[in-house]
Amino acid sequence: MATWQFDAETAVTALAPDRWQARLSAAWNIGDNPNGGYMAVPALRAAREAAGLPDPASVTIHYLRPGVAEDDAGITAELVRRGRRAANVTAGMEQQGKERLRLTAVMADLGRPGPSEVEAPALALPMPELPAPDDCPGRTELNQGIGLAIASRLDIRVARTAAGDGAGNGAEIAGWVRLADGRPVDTAALVLFADAFPPSIFSLLGPVGWVPTLELTVHVRRHPAPGWIAGRFRTSDIADGLLVEDGELWDETGALVARSRQLALLL
Amino acid sequence: MATWQFDAETAVTALAPDRWQARLSAAWNIGDNPNGGYMAVPALRAAREAAGLPDPASVTIHYLRPGVAEDDAGITAELVRRGRRAANVTAGMEQQGKERLRLTAVMADLGRPGPSEVEAPALALPMPELPAPDDCPGRTELNQGIGLAIASRLDIRVARTAAGDGAGNGAEIAGWVRLADGRPVDTAALVLFADAFPPSIFSLLGPVGWVPTLELTVHVRRHPAPGWIAGRFRTSDIADGLLVEDGELWDETGALVARSRQLALLL
Repeated sequence: MATWQFDAETAVTALAPDRWQARLSAAWNIGDNPNGGYMAVPALRAAREAAGLPDPASVTIHYLRPGVAEDDAGITAELVRRGRRAANVTAGMEQQGKERLRLTAVMADLGRPGPSEVEAPALALPMPELPAPDDCPGRTELNQGIGLAIASRLDIRVARTAAGDGAGNGAEIAGWVRLADGRPVDTAALVLFADAFPPSIFSLLGPVGWVPTLELTVHVRRHPAPGWIAGRFRTSDIADGLLVEDGELWDETGALVARSRQLALLL
Repeated sequence: MATWQFDAETAVTALAPDRWQARLSAAWNIGDNPNGGYMAVPALRAAREAAGLPDPASVTIHYLRPGVAEDDAGITAELVRRGRRAANVTAGMEQQGKERLRLTAVMADLGRPGPSEVEAPALALPMPELPAPDDCPGRTELNQGIGLAIASRLDIRVARTAAGDGAGNGAEIAGWVRLADGRPVDTAALVLFADAFPPSIFSLLGPVGWVPTLELTVHVRRHPAPGWIAGRFRTSDIADGLLVEDGELWDETGALVARSRQLALLL
């Protein structure tokens, strides 16, 4: 039986009730480092098991040190509080005796129907109009200034980029993403997608190479429908070498499926 | 010597290198519960001491249980990693033997001049045009449907509210905030301000009372200039009883000083 790349390369093996082992692949590298979104997924899998709930309604990842591709990783997870609808968990990932990332999540089950009286359908964050994926160039045509092994795993199409201005229009990149081997997108893959596009400051600053993420928070809102995921990422403010990038992800039906924000370092 | 209310009521006393004690005041209550932004400040003070750096470039707070006003709180903090420019810390606060909140932060010194070559002055998130604070009603005129002891500590003026729509315009509240006794605003107070306005869904849903925060992330961007702080908060998406509210804070010079996002529960 064939196994999807995403599942094989983010799998965790339980060693104890609060300890797991994973192995980071080099296939998701950006330059010499595993992509941060990819690195978070094995820790998220451990968090799912510790919580007994599948979906990160909120997940914050602190990147402490770069990951090591083609090496083992040890993961610990702690169930901080289990409520009726949600659970708070933390997880840490180490390699070679040094902690690489720490994750804090509110886990929930977004597939379970909720109390209908609290729906407020008047509000929505609509998907921007984008050319169809097949009419958009692939990410490797953008010359990001760095090696992109990850292009073997993620099929990213760039629909548009903008340099931004001082009037509130941020530097922007928008496009489409799917897993290259056709694996259906779940809420763990959405967390990866939130940190997988070329940096939105690309058209402002050119091929900036690696823009290391210090902290990434993703709010998953809904289970995605099958098909492509549309993404839009914006940087509206850079100060003292630190930038905040905002993102939104929609599925092909136009439903908002996740929002993200990250603090990153401009080297 | 007079002491500012904010300092007296968020003070921490060191009990050991990684343990502090605080006492939560009832003066910052919303209904029967201490405001979440207020509760986070003593934990943030402990995180500052553990990091040896003053400013939360990123802070994520998970609210586990409501706080208990007029009772002691124990705080533990851990320095996860100390880098050259930033430090990762976590802190937890318990009362009556139960953990109330857990905080994860990237601490930095935003007052230290950074490398000028990485500034990108072309980007900015401009302050919206708002009537002057003295031309705006106070928050208590809004009838939020709940007791607001916090109005004795925070002077909030509501400049405008909007109910939002399905076209991407979120439910919104915008206005001004300062500490009622005139204490200058620092980066810890900005974290409080990010969770202190009436909920932005007020004009969509009416007096909703308490909208408990599950998770709040604040990115402080700059030290604020003296004077009022302008705030704008928006909810663009409600799903299954969970909403995401975005916020921005500016100082009187129009400089963006903080951004926030929270996941909250619609009861």
